[in-house]
Amino acid sequence: MRIILTIQYDGSEFCGWQSQPNKRTVQDVIIDALYRLTGEKVCLIGSGRTDSGVHAFAQVAHFDIENSSIPPKKYAAALNGLLPDDVKVLSSEETSEEFHARFSAKRKTYRYAYYESNTVLPLKDRYAAKIYRNVDDKKMNDACAYFVGEHDFKCFLASNSSVKDTVREIYCAKVERIDNDLFFTVTGNGFLYNMVRIMAGTLLKVGDGTLNPSDVGRIIASGERKNAGNTMPARGLTLLSVEYK
Amino acid sequence: MRIILTIQYDGSEFCGWQSQPNKRTVQDVIIDALYRLTGEKVCLIGSGRTDSGVHAFAQVAHFDIENSSIPPKKYAAALNGLLPDDVKVLSSEETSEEFHARFSAKRKTYRYAYYESNTVLPLKDRYAAKIYRNVDDKKMNDACAYFVGEHDFKCFLASNSSVKDTVREIYCAKVERIDNDLFFTVTGNGFLYNMVRIMAGTLLKVGDGTLNPSDVGRIIASGERKNAGNTMPARGLTLLSVEYK
Repeated sequence: MRIILTIQYDGSEFCGWQSQPNKRTVQDVIIDALYRLTGEKVCLIGSGRTDSGVHAFAQVAHFDIENSSIPPKKYAAALNGLLPDDVKVLSSEETSEEFHARFSAKRKTYRYAYYESNTVLPLKDRYAAKIYRNVDDKKMNDACAYFVGEHDFKCFLASNSSVKDTVREIYCAKVERIDNDLFFTVTGNGFLYNMVRIMAGTLLKVGDGTLNPSDVGRIIASGERKNAGNTMPARGLTLLSVEYK
Repeated sequence: MRIILTIQYDGSEFCGWQSQPNKRTVQDVIIDALYRLTGEKVCLIGSGRTDSGVHAFAQVAHFDIENSSIPPKKYAAALNGLLPDDVKVLSSEETSEEFHARFSAKRKTYRYAYYESNTVLPLKDRYAAKIYRNVDDKKMNDACAYFVGEHDFKCFLASNSSVKDTVREIYCAKVERIDNDLFFTVTGNGFLYNMVRIMAGTLLKVGDGTLNPSDVGRIIASGERKNAGNTMPARGLTLLSVEYK
């Protein structure tokens, strides 16, 4: 029987999603809770990795289980009784054997949150990155238009990555402001390692006037990581949703 | 010279504001940073205590310093270099010797945040308390009218408190909903120990239909702690502002 889980986590105290020896990861914590619940060491497959410190509003994962006395929908509550407060299962249900959390994923949406302040704000800083004041969110939003479409996003790939296929399609991208909080939301068919954080850093250079919105199109065309902005801190990034169908 | 500080903190990892032996408190952490900065062990006086786990968007405190080479407005940045990320000074300035952070305070505003969910949500739970779904926020807001005015709020006083004068004046109180998040905001000339958290628990009994809004008036008149609601968790409470003049 294949079970699909929707999972929320605060990534602050995790070394990312992916299982690693001697590190606290989301995948390991859930596998451990499943083991305590069922006595089986399952293989838990997520829609993709999230880096150390990155949050998830609704990550998706699946696992197969042989003989379970627990009804599929009851896994969420049963696991939540065993899981720490920084990771919880929002829902669980049975899915078909054709469903694969990673390979069946069609679209993912990430949000990068910034806050304008001269000072680190303890009540903002856990889920957003501090930036200088008065960035031009309108220009940042204009620049988002250059992300949309199918492009080779090599310029937004972490320089230590060895991935070969760097073409991805972005369906929508926007920047919104609420007072001193800015939110960059982007939906695509997939994302390269550090891609959203580097996009967020490039947008910031548009916001502060270092770049014009149209420069973003040239940066993508150049394919050069050095032309793009900095990799923004993990704390501001949240995986909002994964869509299937 | 008297210096006034405006301070923000995430209370999650603090045992409250007030200095205590062998506990991590906001007051001690700031006094320690001031000592490292100036070499003086100052007496830091806050507008009032906040309990263990309670947050502050803008707490106010003052201290006196004899010989300072640091310009008053520079204390904020200088302290922030020494303070941990969960407490920061938003601003600092010189004030008159008549100003007293506690005795000069005229109004304080607190906010209690709830979120409706069947599951603990890791991305909400640090700054809000989980409640059941579909509480009636309109009735909760109606009930707030009974808080407003000068009343003996003995019914909202923690049962282990020995305070004598339990009369306070509430200037405004309201409940607002944004999707599944509810916010109870209350401004008064002062608050008893645990008062806002017990008010929040009493409102919740109105929201779930256990009480009618008008029952809140009767509870206040009764002066009996047992008639009021539960003390809600500290995590949901934030001291928003302290007003002077």
